[in-house]
Amino acid sequence: MHATLKHLATVAACVLLSGSSSVQSTSEIRGPFPSPAIAGDEGSPIYGVTIPAGYRQWELVAPSHEAGSLDELRGILGNTLAMKAYREATLPFPDGAILVKVAWKHVPSAEFSGAFVPGPATTVQVMVKDSKKYAPTGGWGFGRFIDGKPVDEAQHKTCFACHAALVRGHDFVFTRYAP
Amino acid sequence: MHATLKHLATVAACVLLSGSSSVQSTSEIRGPFPSPAIAGDEGSPIYGVTIPAGYRQWELVAPSHEAGSLDELRGILGNTLAMKAYREATLPFPDGAILVKVAWKHVPSAEFSGAFVPGPATTVQVMVKDSKKYAPTGGWGFGRFIDGKPVDEAQHKTCFACHAALVRGHDFVFTRYAP
Repeated sequence: MHATLKHLATVAACVLLSGSSSVQSTSEIRGPFPSPAIAGDEGSPIYGVTIPAGYRQWELVAPSHEAGSLDELRGILGNTLAMKAYREATLPFPDGAILVKVAWKHVPSAEFSGAFVPGPATTVQVMVKDSKKYAPTGGWGFGRFIDGKPVDEAQHKTCFACHAALVRGHDFVFTRYAP
Repeated sequence: MHATLKHLATVAACVLLSGSSSVQSTSEIRGPFPSPAIAGDEGSPIYGVTIPAGYRQWELVAPSHEAGSLDELRGILGNTLAMKAYREATLPFPDGAILVKVAWKHVPSAEFSGAFVPGPATTVQVMVKDSKKYAPTGGWGFGRFIDGKPVDEAQHKTCFACHAALVRGHDFVFTRYAP
């Protein structure tokens, strides 16, 4: 892969093409108990994407492992609209689809040699589909959060360029459903 | 780790302590659409544990990565009772709690250098809590499935010994909740 693209993707982020605006948090919570996951009201630079309430209770699209300097295990979760699109192989994703990538350090299990488990949480990354609002960025708004707070605009300027370069043919989404 | 224990754990399995019996599939499905995941009616040897219907739509407890010869990415999912116990730090898990570990080969992403994603599915492994039925095995029944079919009795004979040796203090469960 082109080194610059790899760097862009590694820092997670998004080209400035649209004005700042706010995406409402969803209230889709799927359990009888409150989610302990951090949900924030502070929107990302450029996109105004927030951490959706209750996301930690969404279904799993797939796990992943990022080797190298980030050294992370991830769980990519989807809301109901996103999961329906995955299972029906609908592309592009419909407006309202939201994907959340939850990342933790990739640490050795203290109990099982050769296994790696989630360590400290690192980032929460969000993609929100709104084909009108985010038309200049493939219909997607991006947000990258550390400790519930969005990272800076510079990081958000890199998101879309990388997604557009590498996964334009999958509606700008890296993750595939793991059945 | 003791080499024998590691082997036991790697093959996934369970000591023969209880008679064969059947655990009913749950019908807990959380989406408006049918699950494409394989759910089987054939119970595991020794325990009679089946693949619970709709498990693929359950919440994520945590992802994990098993290096070495298995070379797998996993997603450990829990039903509502299991997730409630995790979030409330309830140990032991209550009767009715079910954990499902879904495993895929750990393969390099074709689109993002340094990332690893789920490849072909390998196994589905199930733990069902029933403190009376499975009293001799810490209250847990075990099932390991390939292509929806339970593996043989020999593999199931190894499950509990490994869980008992390594994670007795966490109610015989390896996976911790990743917040």
